[in-house]
Order: sequence, then structure tokens, then C-alpha cells
Amino acid sequence: MAIVFDETNLLARMVGDADGITPEELAAAEPLAAQALAGVKALTEAGVIGFPNLPKQTALAGEIVTYAGKVKGSYDTVCLVGIGGSALGAWALDCAIRGPHPVQGDHSAAKPRLVILDNVDPEFVQLALASMKPKKTLVVVIAKSGATAETVATFLIVRAWLAAGVGAKGVKARVVVVTSEGRGDLKVMATNEGYTTFHIPENVGGRFSVLSAVGLVPAALIGVDVPALLRGAAKMTATAWKPDLASNTPLRAALLHFLSLTKKGKTIQVAFPYANRLWGTAFWFRQLWAESLGKAKNRAGVVVHVGQTPVAALGTTDQHSQVQLYMEGPKDKLFTFWAVKKPADPGAIPAEKTGLEGFDYLTGQSLAKLLDVECKSTQAALTENQRPNCVFTLDRVDAEHVGMFFQLLEFETAFAGEMLDINAFDQEGVELGKKFTFGLMGRKGFADFKKRYTDYEARRKG
Amino acid sequence: MAIVFDETNLLARMVGDADGITPEELAAAEPLAAQALAGVKALTEAGVIGFPNLPKQTALAGEIVTYAGKVKGSYDTVCLVGIGGSALGAWALDCAIRGPHPVQGDHSAAKPRLVILDNVDPEFVQLALASMKPKKTLVVVIAKSGATAETVATFLIVRAWLAAGVGAKGVKARVVVVTSEGRGDLKVMATNEGYTTFHIPENVGGRFSVLSAVGLVPAALIGVDVPALLRGAAKMTATAWKPDLASNTPLRAALLHFLSLTKKGKTIQVAFPYANRLWGTAFWFRQLWAESLGKAKNRAGVVVHVGQTPVAALGTTDQHSQVQLYMEGPKDKLFTFWAVKKPADPGAIPAEKTGLEGFDYLTGQSLAKLLDVECKSTQAALTENQRPNCVFTLDRVDAEHVGMFFQLLEFETAFAGEMLDINAFDQEGVELGKKFTFGLMGRKGFADFKKRYTDYEARRKG
Repeated sequence: MAIVFDETNLLARMVGDADGITPEELAAAEPLAAQALAGVKALTEAGVIGFPNLPKQTALAGEIVTYAGKVKGSYDTVCLVGIGGSALGAWALDCAIRGPHPVQGDHSAAKPRLVILDNVDPEFVQLALASMKPKKTLVVVIAKSGATAETVATFLIVRAWLAAGVGAKGVKARVVVVTSEGRGDLKVMATNEGYTTFHIPENVGGRFSVLSAVGLVPAALIGVDVPALLRGAAKMTATAWKPDLASNTPLRAALLHFLSLTKKGKTIQVAFPYANRLWGTAFWFRQLWAESLGKAKNRAGVVVHVGQTPVAALGTTDQHSQVQLYMEGPKDKLFTFWAVKKPADPGAIPAEKTGLEGFDYLTGQSLAKLLDVECKSTQAALTENQRPNCVFTLDRVDAEHVGMFFQLLEFETAFAGEMLDINAFDQEGVELGKKFTFGLMGRKGFADFKKRYTDYEARRKG
Repeated sequence: MAIVFDETNLLARMVGDADGITPEELAAAEPLAAQALAGVKALTEAGVIGFPNLPKQTALAGEIVTYAGKVKGSYDTVCLVGIGGSALGAWALDCAIRGPHPVQGDHSAAKPRLVILDNVDPEFVQLALASMKPKKTLVVVIAKSGATAETVATFLIVRAWLAAGVGAKGVKARVVVVTSEGRGDLKVMATNEGYTTFHIPENVGGRFSVLSAVGLVPAALIGVDVPALLRGAAKMTATAWKPDLASNTPLRAALLHFLSLTKKGKTIQVAFPYANRLWGTAFWFRQLWAESLGKAKNRAGVVVHVGQTPVAALGTTDQHSQVQLYMEGPKDKLFTFWAVKKPADPGAIPAEKTGLEGFDYLTGQSLAKLLDVECKSTQAALTENQRPNCVFTLDRVDAEHVGMFFQLLEFETAFAGEMLDINAFDQEGVELGKKFTFGLMGRKGFADFKKRYTDYEARRKG
């Protein structure tokens, strides 16, 4: 069981000094890596951040698995109501372990479907409700604050839909809540109505919460091997505390990505899985990297407008969509391939010849080989075009490796935040938009923002 | 029926001179717009490009609809084998008209499911095959060249799977081919085996082909209203030939996006639909914009490394994932919102009060209002942070509007290519990776590239 990081094609000797990291730059930055490791360790020991300790929560995992065992068979659909960090981890897990829709195939009580309501698009919610049966649906509502507008609005609709289908008294048995322990309106409602409830530690933010109840509850309900997930994450945690760059994969990856951003101007990181099962994880990573590192100010309060824009691409698919730009367009990108060493199925191509030149060089080979060759060919072509790239190689896509990979990327992000000297754990930038929304929806205390919005509209009219 | 473009928040008076376009810059660029219009017109009249004329192909559309009517009821799954421009248009249409998976709900002969095999990931293909029944699957193979490695490899597997399920003689009735008329191994096989075949005009490239047989065949097979699609596209075509910027929406959008890129350094365009139904279209657009405009050289052969990286984001969902970066990170982005004026369902939120402050300001309102308010609030907050943004507003998401929107974005891309003085219709940058793949897979004539790859591997080892 392993995830290997190969940074060769990020180095100056492969892509040139203008785009690649020189040995001198790497050597000069090593103290920064040590400092980042110490910084994340200090934050963890002070209890400021909680994600490094989540793999140890085996008691909580046990409770969740027990609960899932108890309700098993009573539903064919898990309907997750949540947004952002409350939804993306569950999607990543569903996609990784059971494959992407629609190829997951038919659902049943033995193989429940995960429907994620992570948007307030009314047509989307209406389609979702039409596709589910209240008597066979288990609703998981997830909101750390307990008052996320989108989640609350959607849950009010889903709750009424449940009540119409199973009766007001029946709702209780069909709702599970994941929220903060000591605060929030969702917690109050859960207590009043008697919903089964699991808690999110205060020091675990949404994008770092997949291994808390936020990810583990839906995971257990759709049959993901929760102990294996935590086992993988625990192994990676041990790796992440190692002091040397050679063995500390997340720290080394953070340093190389940091140098590519700050020394070589690679303002975009393309997360490039060559596996459909990792597509959900790419979107989970996209939040982690964007929200943690995209900041207006550094910790000293100096305006920096820093960050690296994460882009999700899928191989081989996006070779026929994005790679033209990646090869020839602006040199503003670094590419992080996510490869899988041993697909569970080779995908044998029939050996029978067709007599057609464009077909017969493929007959008798396998999709696994073609996928691997295309991944390596794309890396080689990028490298020859001075486009820096690197690879995470997972042995397999299973619960243990996905747990490892989540923890790897969370540690890498935390380390990169330290290197950039920013607070990787807040998200002040989304507050203004939220306040405008509250103002326009008529929430008490936000009339000033309604006024400010009206002034903006007047300015638009010129 | 309309699609409106609002560029107010791209202008200097809203976001400042450093990030917004000044009246002087706009006035100075107007001749360039006229030149771009003339350029695309000349290419069309010379027959170099064919997409502007696709909406007129009503005879072809009639044949396709007739064929779809004939086979209707004989399948519950349409399995599309194709990649890039051969797959993304069909996905965009399926998602727009029937909603995204998994909320589309159960499939049946009356409501067939579209399964797109656009990757050679063996686990993905294996899951897909396990989810389909050969006797109830209609396979559509799409490849303009007739020799795309991924499509050929997948089709060889799917063909054997069909033969195992329906017998070798039964395969013929379960396969439809879309390819070039006069060339390619897929065309030869289709002729030899007697597959129903539709053709792609030579002057229509993959990313501009959604309104050719490439998009229309799968669309008709899943019940999309093909005449409405073409009707919408025809209306937009008329708009795109208008000489004045005020009424020519695609030309105005192209000019403003071009100026944001070249004068204000906005190297990333976020396509930001506030509608799950437009998520597939965002991925279709991502290919169109990236592959058309990402070029190493201009038409004079000068190295320019030009292009704008398209990023797909979904509102409100990505407010909780990407907007922190968008508000506070590097000022390298422009945002193009895709809003829908009249959702088919308002998504009424129950009026009953809960007694909870964080819930009760929402009760009795609607998801449609919340979605609209969040979209506008995000625009306002971006504007106050000097982040230029603009909006396409579609009245509705239906076949007619999607047809209009495809054509709008195709024209916009073609115009932007003229303004950048590049060839927007080739994709030379993907050739090197393909050649390495051919070499490593042992295709005849590519031994040199196998050697070149081996040399690269040796350099990596240092």
C-alpha cells in the first residue's frame, strides 16, 4: 500500500531554468519546509487545527458503523443535504469506491444510491425529489454552522417532502444530522425533533472534515469501509510528521508546488487524475487548495492576493479537450497527474484482427496499458514543451488508499499555507456575498447590506 | 426567447481602470470587431469552416429523427463511444434537457439513459458494461478521423460484449456510426459490417460539431427536440452576422473577453452557470475555448503562447468551494455567469415557521429567489473587490435556448480567434502526445517516437 510522488519533471534539468526548479532553489528552500512542518505541528498540538487527529477517532467511527448497520436495509437512497465541504468528501468517496454516475448502475436497499443536494437550483431539487421515494430515503443534513442558507432552504423542502410521504411522525426516523455540538439552529432543531445526530469538532473546518462525521456518516451509509479509510489516513499521518523531505511525501509535494508557484509563476495547478474513480476527489481537492491558499493578506496583514487556481482535468478524456491549451498556451500551469498503478480490471481488448491498420495495433492489448501509455506520453510531451509536471501514483483506488490520499493532500495544503505565510484555515472572502444574500432575502440585521446592494445596482445603471 | 449579455461589471467604471475596460479601449477596438466579423464570414463563405451553416441542415435532421423513431423502444440505454468533441456535446444536451445524473432517475425504453464511454479507464468501462444489457443497448460510435485510439480500443471491447450478448449477427442492428464520409478505418468497418452510418462534414471540427450528426444522433436517440435545437441555433446565427456590436451578442462578448485577456491580464475565464442543467455545457465550452484559443503561434508564425484557461464552476455550489479564491486570490480572472431567468419550477420553501432565526427568514420564499439573489450577490461582491464579471442570461434551459447558446459560444470563439490573429480551428499541440502513444503501443510507422520516448526516460533517470 503506497502513494508515491515523482517530481522529476518539475525540475530545471527536465524543463529548463525558466520553468523548472533548480537544485539551488530547492536547497535554499529546505529550511522553509522544516519551518512549515513545525508550524503545522504547533497548530495541531495547540488544538487550533484538528484534521491531523481525525484518523485516531476510532470510537466515533465505531458508533457511526453501528448506526449504519442498524438502519441498513431501510433505504435505497441516501439523500445528503449539504454544500461545499459538507458535500464534496462524500461525493469523492462515492465516486472512488463505487464509480461515477451513471455507470454505478441500478440502486437497491443492498446498494443504496447517494443523491447529493448541494445546490438551491429549484429544477435540480425538483428532479431529485421526483427520483426518490420518501419511504426508502435516508436524509443526511450536514452544516457545521447549522445555518448555511442553501442547506437550510433545501432541508425545509426535503423535510416537508418526507412528511408528505411518511407522515409527520415518520420524519424523525428518516433524518440524520451532522453539525456542531454546542451551537446553531440545526442543532436546536435536531434536539427538538429527536433526529439522530453526530458532531463536528470545532477545530475541523469544512474542507478538512472528510474524515470526521461529515464524510464518515454518508460513507458508512453507502457501504464504504470506514475502518480501512481511517487506517490509510493514519498511515499517511505518520508519514506527514517525518522530518526529512525524502520520506515526508506531503511536505515534499508542498515545497515543490510552492516553489513552482512563487519562483516560476505557475499560478494554475491542474489536478489530472487518469482514473474516473478519482474525478470526485479532484473536485474535493479543488476546494481544499483554492479556499485554503487563496488569500488577500498574509499573516502580517500585508496585501498579497496570493493563491494557485486548481483546475480539475481527467485523463485520457481531457487530452481531447484541454491538452492543446496545456501544451501551447500560456506557461502559467503546473500539472499534477494522479495515476493508478494496478487497476482492478485490465480491460482486455479482443485479440481478433479486423484487417484495419488503425485498429489492429490495439487488438490483444489492454485498456490498462493504453491508459498508462497515454498518461506517460502526455507527461513526456508536456516536458518536451517545458511544461512542468509531477505525479502521485496510488497503488489502487480503494478505501485505504483514498484515506491516505485525503490526508496527504490535507497535510500538503496545510504545509503550503505555512510556506506562503497565510492562514490556510479561514475563508473571510466569502462573507460579503453571504451578507448581500442575507440582506436581499430579508434576514434580520442585514438591512445595511440590502442598502449597499441597492447602491451598487444604481452605480451599474450609471 | 432570448439570451442577453450584460457586460457592465467588466467596465472600468465598475471595477477600476486596472481591471476594467475603459471607454477609450473599447472605442479603439471596434475596428477589430468589424475585422473579426469579416474574417469569420470569409472563412464561412470559402467553406473553410462549416459550423455556421449547420442549423440549415434540416434534411439531415429529418433523416436522424426518422431513424430515431424507427429504433425507438428497442433500447433502454444509448452507449456513446467517443471522446472530446465527439462526446461533450451529447453530454451537454443530456444534462441540459434531462438533468444531471443521478437525479435523472430510473431509465427505461421510454426514457433511455445515455452512458458515455469517453475514457479508456478499464475500471470505468467495466462498470459501464456491467450496468448495461446488450439486448437493450444501442451503441453510437463517433470518431471523425475514424481512428481515434481511445474510441477504437473501447469500441473493440463493446463490440465483443454486444456479440456475446446478442450473437455476432445481432451486432449490426445495435450499432450506429458517425464518422467522415470519405475516409477512415471506422468508415471501412461500418461499410463492411453494414452499420447504420451518418457523416460529419470535413469542414466541421470536433468542438464545433454538436449541431452535426455528432450531437444530433445521440440527441434524437434520447428524445431531445432536434428541430427546436436547430431553430434556436439558426436564430443565433442570424444575430451573429449583424454588423453592429449592440445587437451582435457573440461579437460583443468576444470583444469584451478579448480585451479583458489582452489589456487587463485576465488569463482565466470562469464559466459560472447558476443551474445544474448547464453543468455539461460548461464542460463542452471548456473544450471549445481552450482548444480553439490556446496556441503557440499566431497566423504569421510568431511564437505567442496565447490562450485563456477556461474553468467550470457551478453556482451556488462553488460559492462554498472556489469563491474565496475568486474574491481574494490573484487578479487573473474574469467571470462569466450563466443565469436562467425563469426556472421551470420555483422550488417553494414551506411557509410554516420553525421558531429558529436562521431558518425563518427563508420560510415562504423560494429556491428560485434564493438562487437569483445569491448569483447577484456574488456578482456584487466580486465587483466591489475589483473582479470583472459579466452575465449571459438565458430565458429558460430548453432545446431552443441550448441550441442558441451553443451557436453563440461557437461564434464568440471564432470571433475571438480572429481578434487574437490565430487559427482557432486546428489542434497541432496534441500531436506529440499522440505520436508517443502510437510509438509505445507499437503502431507501425511510429518507432521513432518510441525511441524518442526512451531517450526522455533516460534523461529522467539523470
